[in-house]
Amino acid sequence: MKIGIVANILQDKPLAEAIEYFHKMGIQTIELGCGGYAGKAHVDPDKLLADQKLLSSFKETVDSSGLVISALSCHGNPIHPDRELATQFHADMLNAVKLASELNIDTITCFSGCAGDSPDARFPNWVTCSWPDDYLKVLDYQWNDVLIPYWTDFASTARSHGVNKIALELHPGFMVYNSETLKRLRDAVGPEIGVNFDPSHLVWQGMEPIAVLRELRDSIYHVHAKDVKIDKYNAAVNGILDTKHYSDEINRSWIFRTIGYGNEAAYWKAIFSTLRLIGYDGAVSIEHEDSLINRFEGLQKAVKIMKECMLIEEKSDMWWA
Amino acid sequence: MKIGIVANILQDKPLAEAIEYFHKMGIQTIELGCGGYAGKAHVDPDKLLADQKLLSSFKETVDSSGLVISALSCHGNPIHPDRELATQFHADMLNAVKLASELNIDTITCFSGCAGDSPDARFPNWVTCSWPDDYLKVLDYQWNDVLIPYWTDFASTARSHGVNKIALELHPGFMVYNSETLKRLRDAVGPEIGVNFDPSHLVWQGMEPIAVLRELRDSIYHVHAKDVKIDKYNAAVNGILDTKHYSDEINRSWIFRTIGYGNEAAYWKAIFSTLRLIGYDGAVSIEHEDSLINRFEGLQKAVKIMKECMLIEEKSDMWWA
Amino acid sequence: MKIGIVANILQDKPLAEAIEYFHKMGIQTIELGCGGYAGKAHVDPDKLLADQKLLSSFKETVDSSGLVISALSCHGNPIHPDRELATQFHADMLNAVKLASELNIDTITCFSGCAGDSPDARFPNWVTCSWPDDYLKVLDYQWNDVLIPYWTDFASTARSHGVNKIALELHPGFMVYNSETLKRLRDAVGPEIGVNFDPSHLVWQGMEPIAVLRELRDSIYHVHAKDVKIDKYNAAVNGILDTKHYSDEINRSWIFRTIGYGNEAAYWKAIFSTLRLIGYDGAVSIEHEDSLINRFEGLQKAVKIMKECMLIEEKSDMWWA
Amino acid sequence: MKIGIVANILQDKPLAEAIEYFHKMGIQTIELGCGGYAGKAHVDPDKLLADQKLLSSFKETVDSSGLVISALSCHGNPIHPDRELATQFHADMLNAVKLASELNIDTITCFSGCAGDSPDARFPNWVTCSWPDDYLKVLDYQWNDVLIPYWTDFASTARSHGVNKIALELHPGFMVYNSETLKRLRDAVGPEIGVNFDPSHLVWQGMEPIAVLRELRDSIYHVHAKDVKIDKYNAAVNGILDTKHYSDEINRSWIFRTIGYGNEAAYWKAIFSTLRLIGYDGAVSIEHEDSLINRFEGLQKAVKIMKECMLIEEKSDMWWA
Amino acid sequence: MKIGIVANILQDKPLAEAIEYFHKMGIQTIELGCGGYAGKAHVDPDKLLADQKLLSSFKETVDSSGLVISALSCHGNPIHPDRELATQFHADMLNAVKLASELNIDTITCFSGCAGDSPDARFPNWVTCSWPDDYLKVLDYQWNDVLIPYWTDFASTARSHGVNKIALELHPGFMVYNSETLKRLRDAVGPEIGVNFDPSHLVWQGMEPIAVLRELRDSIYHVHAKDVKIDKYNAAVNGILDTKHYSDEINRSWIFRTIGYGNEAAYWKAIFSTLRLIGYDGAVSIEHEDSLINRFEGLQKAVKIMKECMLIEEKSDMWWA
Amino acid sequence: MKIGIVANILQDKPLAEAIEYFHKMGIQTIELGCGGYAGKAHVDPDKLLADQKLLSSFKETVDSSGLVISALSCHGNPIHPDRELATQFHADMLNAVKLASELNIDTITCFSGCAGDSPDARFPNWVTCSWPDDYLKVLDYQWNDVLIPYWTDFASTARSHGVNKIALELHPGFMVYNSETLKRLRDAVGPEIGVNFDPSHLVWQGMEPIAVLRELRDSIYHVHAKDVKIDKYNAAVNGILDTKHYSDEINRSWIFRTIGYGNEAAYWKAIFSTLRLIGYDGAVSIEHEDSLINRFEGLQKAVKIMKECMLIEEKSDMWWA
Repeated sequence: MKIGIVANILQDKPLAEAIEYFHKMGIQTIELGCGGYAGKAHVDPDKLLADQKLLSSFKETVDSSGLVISALSCHGNPIHPDRELATQFHADMLNAVKLASELNIDTITCFSGCAGDSPDARFPNWVTCSWPDDYLKVLDYQWNDVLIPYWTDFASTARSHGVNKIALELHPGFMVYNSETLKRLRDAVGPEIGVNFDPSHLVWQGMEPIAVLRELRDSIYHVHAKDVKIDKYNAAVNGILDTKHYSDEINRSWIFRTIGYGNEAAYWKAIFSTLRLIGYDGAVSIEHEDSLINRFEGLQKAVKIMKECMLIEEKSDMWWA
Repeated sequence: MKIGIVANILQDKPLAEAIEYFHKMGIQTIELGCGGYAGKAHVDPDKLLADQKLLSSFKETVDSSGLVISALSCHGNPIHPDRELATQFHADMLNAVKLASELNIDTITCFSGCAGDSPDARFPNWVTCSWPDDYLKVLDYQWNDVLIPYWTDFASTARSHGVNKIALELHPGFMVYNSETLKRLRDAVGPEIGVNFDPSHLVWQGMEPIAVLRELRDSIYHVHAKDVKIDKYNAAVNGILDTKHYSDEINRSWIFRTIGYGNEAAYWKAIFSTLRLIGYDGAVSIEHEDSLINRFEGLQKAVKIMKECMLIEEKSDMWWA
Repeated sequence: MKIGIVANILQDKPLAEAIEYFHKMGIQTIELGCGGYAGKAHVDPDKLLADQKLLSSFKETVDSSGLVISALSCHGNPIHPDRELATQFHADMLNAVKLASELNIDTITCFSGCAGDSPDARFPNWVTCSWPDDYLKVLDYQWNDVLIPYWTDFASTARSHGVNKIALELHPGFMVYNSETLKRLRDAVGPEIGVNFDPSHLVWQGMEPIAVLRELRDSIYHVHAKDVKIDKYNAAVNGILDTKHYSDEINRSWIFRTIGYGNEAAYWKAIFSTLRLIGYDGAVSIEHEDSLINRFEGLQKAVKIMKECMLIEEKSDMWWA
Repeated sequence: MKIGIVANILQDKPLAEAIEYFHKMGIQTIELGCGGYAGKAHVDPDKLLADQKLLSSFKETVDSSGLVISALSCHGNPIHPDRELATQFHADMLNAVKLASELNIDTITCFSGCAGDSPDARFPNWVTCSWPDDYLKVLDYQWNDVLIPYWTDFASTARSHGVNKIALELHPGFMVYNSETLKRLRDAVGPEIGVNFDPSHLVWQGMEPIAVLRELRDSIYHVHAKDVKIDKYNAAVNGILDTKHYSDEINRSWIFRTIGYGNEAAYWKAIFSTLRLIGYDGAVSIEHEDSLINRFEGLQKAVKIMKECMLIEEKSDMWWA
Repeated sequence: MKIGIVANILQDKPLAEAIEYFHKMGIQTIELGCGGYAGKAHVDPDKLLADQKLLSSFKETVDSSGLVISALSCHGNPIHPDRELATQFHADMLNAVKLASELNIDTITCFSGCAGDSPDARFPNWVTCSWPDDYLKVLDYQWNDVLIPYWTDFASTARSHGVNKIALELHPGFMVYNSETLKRLRDAVGPEIGVNFDPSHLVWQGMEPIAVLRELRDSIYHVHAKDVKIDKYNAAVNGILDTKHYSDEINRSWIFRTIGYGNEAAYWKAIFSTLRLIGYDGAVSIEHEDSLINRFEGLQKAVKIMKECMLIEEKSDMWWA
Repeated sequence: MKIGIVANILQDKPLAEAIEYFHKMGIQTIELGCGGYAGKAHVDPDKLLADQKLLSSFKETVDSSGLVISALSCHGNPIHPDRELATQFHADMLNAVKLASELNIDTITCFSGCAGDSPDARFPNWVTCSWPDDYLKVLDYQWNDVLIPYWTDFASTARSHGVNKIALELHPGFMVYNSETLKRLRDAVGPEIGVNFDPSHLVWQGMEPIAVLRELRDSIYHVHAKDVKIDKYNAAVNGILDTKHYSDEINRSWIFRTIGYGNEAAYWKAIFSTLRLIGYDGAVSIEHEDSLINRFEGLQKAVKIMKECMLIEEKSDMWWA
């Protein structure tokens, strides 16, 4: 396994400077944002695809650093009921695939997206309950009329560009958010659909990351290292379905944290050990979204705990049994 | 406290027969459905309000049994984006209030309802996450343009009919589903807005029923006794946001159960003791929605555990301290 | 084992009436108060010892009921720094011993008492910490100058009257309150000093009743069935050292409860099973001190759970191993 | 589901008397011992198979009681390395099959047995660890040379007599003791090999009964209701691999208990609910092996908790969803 | 937040040497003892206040090191019933305030003290139970006649010297030991009364440090980093009210430990994160009172875990939401 | 305490090279294999005892490194029913004792061994259950005819060579595997029989390492630092009696791990603290048997966590109490 980073923690720095900083910390891979919600501060596929010189220079910047790009990321909602937004997100994703192709990268990380309740909807409708039966009707429309058709088409395009790992982050607010929704889409679309495993979205929903890894095994295509902390005092009163802004930390039932601040070293060791058990040996990108801690301090702490917990080298033979 | 029943467990029996059955089991109060999702099998306000003889006969049936009506229930979605549906649900609720007035009952039990994403929506959109900010926009519309205006108006009408306890069930799929949504609506509308406390919807969301009771104290207007069982094997893999139909029991992450089958006697004793601590001394209606157990067997078991766990008589003096 | 009762739950009824009530409920033994804090409503040794006819009548009342007296109880503080109080408590205890002798009862239940900080103190000083060393000095005085001398003398007197089981309740506010204080006094005084095992005082202190039974084995002379409920919300903020009056239930960190309301059937089954393992086969007195529940309702619930959990009959042979 | 009983709890009574006692308690089915370790006190197949009149009388005794035989049981070790013992156990099992055939019973309950370390062994060798590799060699011999051949042959015989449910109790000391050993034998032999599910052997090994039921689903052929209590104080020091005689209760790390004394009602409700989920609707035999409690008292308590926890009637329709 | 130290860990070294040692380890603040139980090895206010040159030299020693004084500490019992002792402790505290004034320090750390049972008492009487009512009488005297008057006066004096943060350590053996006692005194005296938050005294009492921080929020004026380890084996038998000397480690129910040896990194991260949530950004003084570990080794381990767990830098903006 | 190593992690390197590697990592003691299952790669007593020059050179290699030999290890099965094997293992053990004598080492580490079921057995029979009584017969033979005689003799020999600490590893597959088997052998043989405490074998059996240390106190002669991870998903279905090869990691119910990967720092700190409490101040040998992690990476992680958790220096005086 390799220690990676979601590069937009330093989106206010030029890419070369960011890469140098990461490299000094012992980070081995980077995941670069190419559009969607997180923007294109470091990598703008439109420009790179249009300008071979710029592309070469970009490649040179990365290659010379010794870092490797683990995936291009493009987290949007390409099935947003607002047609204009959807079109823009889709265009970003298409460009990410094209750029990946140019860079010989076979993996993109993204969201499944979330549709509205009908073709006339204005906003996504993330269904999380099964009654009254309104919700089952919405799901029927969303899956059969929107989600599966979209991804069948997109996976085909991606495959044709050599991108055969579409790593969907199981994420609240989007239609693929747990093991069964991932498997349903993968079964309907094909093996291009896999997972960008980020346990910070699973724990507060009551999933056990280890159980999810054992369930999804071969479909794990990429991994994020982000932590989540459930606040038991707030959850006791309000439950874990929290719609307050992420900045209202003291009142929320859960918040994102730097790894090690939501769950302990033991939790991360178990995740990394299970990744080894199921044969995953790729990148694990640190994603900093901890509003309580300084980003540089947070990154240093995250790298430290990654080095403590990850299994970086190849296994040795068993001489004792 | 009194042992009550949600009467629709015997909706296929005439009311008199149902009441007699309940009475024999030691049940003291009934909660009668007057419309909404659960229908009007036992009580149709339209007819009763239109026919004084029918109404007298109805009163006589109830009074002669020794049972007391704890509340009229009318669980619908009066703010459904489908205008026709909303109108029908609202009409049912209005009739429930009028009938309550005729019967000198001050409490109705119902749902807050759930609006769509905008005036043009077709289905309710139950928001359970705060990002992307689509969801905060939906909430802003739903609360300010729909929910608060509707209930401000309805509470005023109810009050004018002597119904000053609108006991909303904190229920998934509807906008008031936890402590803070209840408090927000109560603060906006007034003390008519309270709670029909049913812990079966709280536990799988991660709330602690005791903590919720301590938080909401005086706004507890009615209580349901229904249990919920989280399936730890399914939840480990899929989390607790389950959109599969209630009948797919073996695969769901949680299902409703007869009391005592989701949580033990200790849990129910703690709930009843806390109700006493906060001064609640009304009805606790058994609601049978357990698809694994025969309804008569389930009801017998429920009554038995209620008698074991509830605090029925008045407190004695402390002679020992 | 036998189902017993601390009779003062019906101290406002004549003894005969109380006994009849107990008998109808299936209670087998009674523990009768003869002074101390709980008073002498049912049994006044002064009078009985002075009047053989009265004594005969008393014996007749008990014997004819089929109930057996498990112990005479006299819970006071005979080493109170207020000399007058101490004298009165001591006199009560002495009378209890004399009456026990008359009735051929070998067991009394009581407290160890608690001394003051010095001969000039006005109130007891219950030491629960070891620093600053003031507290160790107080303990040194209390044990060596007061507690051990008092009980050495009292045990000798009791023994001479055939009362060789002085069952001290391990109780907060008194000097013998846990296993090591009991063992220290027993080692210093002799085997007359044993335990009236009441787990309601042990649990909130962090003791495990089963561990205490295993530790004290042969010194268990009598048993009380009273429950305690820790309030985790209050304890989280204030800890379990609670000096608020027992009537301030909603704010206290723990309160006494009817058995089954503090801990579940499993807990009581484990206690009764451990009593059998260590060879105890005597009375288990229900002591009602639950201010949330009606005393008659509480007693009925307590007897029901006792019958469910106790091991009443003799063991059978093992035919299967 | 039906409340059943392992009849040898009353092996010292004539069968008719035992049956009458069971019937009065509300027991619906009986499991009758026909040899093996538990003997033939109630049913001796040799005699019954040899004497049609005796057999008729036996049938009459059972039928007239209203009780139904759920299974014939014959718990021995037919692959014991002591040839003589093995032969006797095998003969008993064969007779049980023949008698079952006569009685139109399709189920027998038994053990898999345990072989020795080699053909020359004198005692069974129950392998529970994988190193040093001695143990893997023993397992290889036991499974391939003894266990699979024996059961292949026996299952064929049983099938030819209409006994197509061989319900093996997963039991320590015998080679089939957990899910994977059961599945290995079933895969090798055929669907006649199934489980007599008795959770008392699973819990102390660290299995979760619910997980085992979910794993083995269709192979559950019969169920025992017996409880086990782990002693945490002894286990902390000695672990759960306990070789002390079952009568040394105070020192053992676990002992068998009457149901409800090892695990609470909640545990049994979960087991019965899971049995319903996986479609089991047969007998659940109470097996009394609790050396701390009188057998009659134990049986009464067991029946009471079975009635409280089992799902006896058929499910009702869901009217609420 | 800043890593601090209670300086008396090196009380046998000259102050300058101690400071140098602390500075090399990365410690940023010091808390200096000025009397009370811990003595005046490093700082004797009497001498410093009397000699401007000495004071200047002292200031110079501290300032030149780069360390900052977070508070002056003076932990005594100024309401000890022994008048002489009380006077001495009070004098120390007064001097600490005066010296703080000279040094422009606004915070002192101390104890509330504990009174006796009456004016004639010889030793403090720390009340931890509410019955028999002796204890309520003692509390009434202690709070109304001693504690509140003393601190009303002292707070006034402190304020007049610019010391407006009197950080009381919630400590066993003294009258302010949990949230409600702190709030009671603060309500009676004024906002000068706050907390020196040391979780090592809270955990064994059953408090949750996070709950206490959320309860006391703005009154947290200073923080100690000391850990406590509950011994579950001893506590099971004797409870957590332990009066054995701190040196009897193997038999005590709890002992003080170096941070990380009583509770894990996760616990400390949660404390530091909650301090940030409630807005505390001051010093956190490591206090070494671990008798199992060498003081230098203990200090190194403590500093290491502080650096791992504390949030030292300012928060960054949220760019991701 | 000292950080030690079981040297065979580098058995493919010459001893001098291995020692140098260990020394650089901060390791202080080595435990050298002299035969048995682990072989003699580094130390062959036959050769060393036969050749004084070789022995001197060996001593020189060790001494010059600054490392100290904590024990010679020889882990075999000297009571194996295969006479030839037993003889060889015994010979290795005897040589280990002789070499220890030459090196002035008083401790050897080994296994108790496991006998067969009778003199004619071919393989060891590790008894882990008490019924059917076959198993008690096997135990009777094994203990009285084999185990106790063997060790009585061996201990006498060892003592005569100055080796008075025979540290048996409580290990599955061998007759001494928990506290009571160790105490039984020690009671029968003498104080030479003690423990090489390796918690990795205790935890999956349900023992608590701290409880075992408190139970065995003075008989702890050596310590291994190896971790074990229970897989709760596999254990739920198959229990912890796992006979699958150690290399089938994903399916096993438990596997050995590098310290910190089975249990957290808190667990190891508690073990080291308890070792200090019971007066152990010797070596703690890291034993690497983690098949998921590279051996060098594993060793680095193990040393790091040892340094974090062990108590290396002498205790300081308590100045604070």
